[in-house]
Amino acid sequence: MKIAIAGAGAMGSRIGLMLHQAGNEVVLIDRWPEHIQAIREKGLIGEFEDQTITAKLPIYSPEEIVEGHTNVDLVIALTKSMQLEAMFKDINAIIGKDTFVFCLLNGLGHEETLSKFVAKQNIIFGTTTWTAGLAGPGHAKLVGTGSIEMENLAPEGKDFTLKVIDIFKQAGLNPIYSDNVRYSIWKKACINGTLNGLCTILDCNIAEFGSMSMARTLIETIIGEFAVVAKAEGIELDQAQAIEAVEATYDVKTQGLHYPSMYQDLIRNHRKTEIDYINGAVWQKGQKYQIQTPYCAFLTQLVHGKEELLNAK
Amino acid sequence: MKIAIAGAGAMGSRIGLMLHQAGNEVVLIDRWPEHIQAIREKGLIGEFEDQTITAKLPIYSPEEIVEGHTNVDLVIALTKSMQLEAMFKDINAIIGKDTFVFCLLNGLGHEETLSKFVAKQNIIFGTTTWTAGLAGPGHAKLVGTGSIEMENLAPEGKDFTLKVIDIFKQAGLNPIYSDNVRYSIWKKACINGTLNGLCTILDCNIAEFGSMSMARTLIETIIGEFAVVAKAEGIELDQAQAIEAVEATYDVKTQGLHYPSMYQDLIRNHRKTEIDYINGAVWQKGQKYQIQTPYCAFLTQLVHGKEELLNAK
Repeated sequence: MKIAIAGAGAMGSRIGLMLHQAGNEVVLIDRWPEHIQAIREKGLIGEFEDQTITAKLPIYSPEEIVEGHTNVDLVIALTKSMQLEAMFKDINAIIGKDTFVFCLLNGLGHEETLSKFVAKQNIIFGTTTWTAGLAGPGHAKLVGTGSIEMENLAPEGKDFTLKVIDIFKQAGLNPIYSDNVRYSIWKKACINGTLNGLCTILDCNIAEFGSMSMARTLIETIIGEFAVVAKAEGIELDQAQAIEAVEATYDVKTQGLHYPSMYQDLIRNHRKTEIDYINGAVWQKGQKYQIQTPYCAFLTQLVHGKEELLNAK
Repeated sequence: MKIAIAGAGAMGSRIGLMLHQAGNEVVLIDRWPEHIQAIREKGLIGEFEDQTITAKLPIYSPEEIVEGHTNVDLVIALTKSMQLEAMFKDINAIIGKDTFVFCLLNGLGHEETLSKFVAKQNIIFGTTTWTAGLAGPGHAKLVGTGSIEMENLAPEGKDFTLKVIDIFKQAGLNPIYSDNVRYSIWKKACINGTLNGLCTILDCNIAEFGSMSMARTLIETIIGEFAVVAKAEGIELDQAQAIEAVEATYDVKTQGLHYPSMYQDLIRNHRKTEIDYINGAVWQKGQKYQIQTPYCAFLTQLVHGKEELLNAK
């Protein structure tokens, strides 16, 4: 299968490498100049636990995707949330009538964005438990294992989605065909919608957040707001299960000592956050349905305030 | 007049010194051992702009106020909010049937606390624009000028309050008899209820807060919550005026470069904050009246969370 990875950061590098190893034709697309240069010069290095592989994969910046590029069968979207729309504007030349898009972004609201560029029946959504890191430009560090859940948005997309499942299986990516991927996306958003913003604003790691006496009340209130909005979108979130999933991360033996990605982006690296696609998306959807989501609103405002104070780019 | 200053920190030292200079019999009460020791050894030093005076004022820790102390005519309450109740439990021996209490604390909810110890007709409330600082134990730095607004809680207290106005006038404290001191207290609480918590959580000074694009929305929302609760207590807050009062502090030529007292207490000195008597009091009063105050609630929780994370004492 001819596959483009739109957003070839750490996770894009992992999935691209594993699909390439399984014999697919993989093209990387990314905006980071040093990353592009390194991969063009030395190939993409994947440092797995048991082996290091180097793959000579083609890589383009989105503006280089002009007429003349042939259509791909599948685009796997792995940009930052706020870069999704610009990416798809730029890479239109490789998207044909039969091209499918598999969206693996965290957060909410991406369905609306992708629908501008691709027919609903060609869209697949998913979530993953795989992790990935970058040791530097062109060099991915790939430890641990994971799985990928996916589902076509419209019934017409099921046949192709099952083909994707098949090639992901051959690549060892442990795909699972989901019958309710929207539920999984909302559940994951509950974890990001509590830990990301709160650890960022309180300047603490996950275990420290979990140790606070009001941690439970805060996550209950925020997840409560997510649940009411999810319900308006036809998804019945199990709030107790979502709370349990958040609290399972407090353990210092697993994720407790980590700082959530938003903390790393904003507090460490002064980069703009994805808050508009998590709590901000719930707030915005809530306004559409006339549902009050004051904790999501306030948290979004605080994170944006912090972005301004730190002059985040 | 025989006057006890209950809480003889910076502001208590200023008012105590100025009333002493005007010929009143002033007793200081405070819990800070080094402060007590310094004043007992060297007197209370007041470093004004144009002169430095040293006053040999008696000072006691609250536990030393036992039977045998004679009643005072007036207690001026100037503790931290969370220390008010314990202070009045301890100093009961100097409070007779005719003793008045003048409460100059910032924040809300002190009426309920003082009513446990003193009849309503003996309570005066007030706010002040004077400032004061401490250079160290027993040494107050007293620059600038100010005024003190005051009003008796019950009509029966008016005659005595006018006497207090008189001696404050003689002391140069610029007293103003107010016909709506509760309004002034709520208006001051609006300033503290926005700048204190938000600068503390966002880790910024007042001008930096004011520079954020969402500053206006945040203060509007919080003051809106204050106004609905104030209305339930019979006070019609002018929200536009309160917003204006907050925004007037942004100017770097006046208060803009300052960090609010809550920031200094918590972020700099790891001390517990008065949030329960500002946003927390609005939240609690709101619950009593079945009024939703989610921004006050969330901000109170975040500040308490930060207190726990910093192990504030």
